[in-house]
Amino acid sequence: MTGKVYIVGAGPGDPELLTVKALKAIEKADIILYDRLVGDKIIEMIRGMGKDVIYVGKNSFEKGSERQKNINELMVKLAKEGKTVVRLKGGDPFVFGRGGEEVEYLIKHNIPFEVIPGLSSVIAVPTSACIPLTHKGLSSTIFVMTGRNLDDIGKSALSGTIVILMGKERIREICKKLIELGKDKNTPVAVIENGTLESQKIYFGNLENIAEVVERDVKGVALIVIGDVVKLGERFNSKRFSSL
Amino acid sequence: MTGKVYIVGAGPGDPELLTVKALKAIEKADIILYDRLVGDKIIEMIRGMGKDVIYVGKNSFEKGSERQKNINELMVKLAKEGKTVVRLKGGDPFVFGRGGEEVEYLIKHNIPFEVIPGLSSVIAVPTSACIPLTHKGLSSTIFVMTGRNLDDIGKSALSGTIVILMGKERIREICKKLIELGKDKNTPVAVIENGTLESQKIYFGNLENIAEVVERDVKGVALIVIGDVVKLGERFNSKRFSSL
Repeated sequence: MTGKVYIVGAGPGDPELLTVKALKAIEKADIILYDRLVGDKIIEMIRGMGKDVIYVGKNSFEKGSERQKNINELMVKLAKEGKTVVRLKGGDPFVFGRGGEEVEYLIKHNIPFEVIPGLSSVIAVPTSACIPLTHKGLSSTIFVMTGRNLDDIGKSALSGTIVILMGKERIREICKKLIELGKDKNTPVAVIENGTLESQKIYFGNLENIAEVVERDVKGVALIVIGDVVKLGERFNSKRFSSL
Repeated sequence: MTGKVYIVGAGPGDPELLTVKALKAIEKADIILYDRLVGDKIIEMIRGMGKDVIYVGKNSFEKGSERQKNINELMVKLAKEGKTVVRLKGGDPFVFGRGGEEVEYLIKHNIPFEVIPGLSSVIAVPTSACIPLTHKGLSSTIFVMTGRNLDDIGKSALSGTIVILMGKERIREICKKLIELGKDKNTPVAVIENGTLESQKIYFGNLENIAEVVERDVKGVALIVIGDVVKLGERFNSKRFSSL
């Protein structure tokens, strides 16, 4: 029987910033593939649990794309041998973590998978350092980028992914405003109701048609995600296998 | 002796998405003050641990500002009685969580405190729902806002807080570019080296002077935070009490 791959976020480095869910996946795993950005103490702890670990992070021999290809192939090989694999990534696997590329590869090879979020350094590092990212009168928005592409500095809210909290009641206005500002009306939108809870539901649509669905059906707490990544997420959702 | 207050992020709702560090703080606590957005199952679990909990979330009688004032006063009162208090907040306490306001109040009353990050729904909800916020060729930036103030939609990267990953090597260029785009050269900047690890160091400066310090002193992994919130974070750092 094919094994399952857990794509797991290890958080920013402190072993105590692992989630309970990440620990449970590690306990269950036959083998753990980990990156350079996973904290040394976390790896020490996992070795202490008697688990096999393989370092697949940066080295001086391979290019990034080559390395990613090798990681993808290794995950599939191990899963096909029937092993439960944890692919442990620094931070959150879907925030600058190439997690999406790994999920695409697993789907292509029909390997059951699950993604477990981790504390992204984007938020956990400033908060642990006692620097609030938002504060009344100082900032009500956050823009996240990397140093890889400095052109991103000039990007407005109209490019990249937009995440909106507490936006359910005003979703019609939000979509209208974005279209007025020049965003394509076919831009994909996901509305996640009761996120991470058993009652979670995801609604997919675009800037033109999502408001109607949300106003009719969404009663719980909702988080809105707008941008091209949503299309990919919709595909992942249609393919993913459930239950830890 | 005055007790300590732990401002703790509970994550998006699933009890398994609590961190080990959050659980340890809860175990240590004499009393837990919690919000509406903390998952019901988390509260059930905490009650099961034999802990006293007090609901301080939204109700129909108080205004938000009144409620916040009551929470602040209650935290201080309990700490002054010598109690170890956990102030449990949905998501991450410093992302749209008013955690900064609570820390300000604790500092004003000389109460020892510590902030423990949690999985913000901003990232954990899409990742759990299998929607990557960034993906090669689709998006390399994330902009976060709430539905409270729709004017934020039009904001560019030049307002609000900017978080930059992997930017250490190009910090001089980054600062130069932001000043050229119109950002004040006195805008505060924090560079957090080896975030959450024992070797963590924080460098404070502004767009004009931070590059020199970083180029000279920062050897480890660094996260850059730019914006007015950094000034507040600098003050919190000068006041905070250490060690869990």
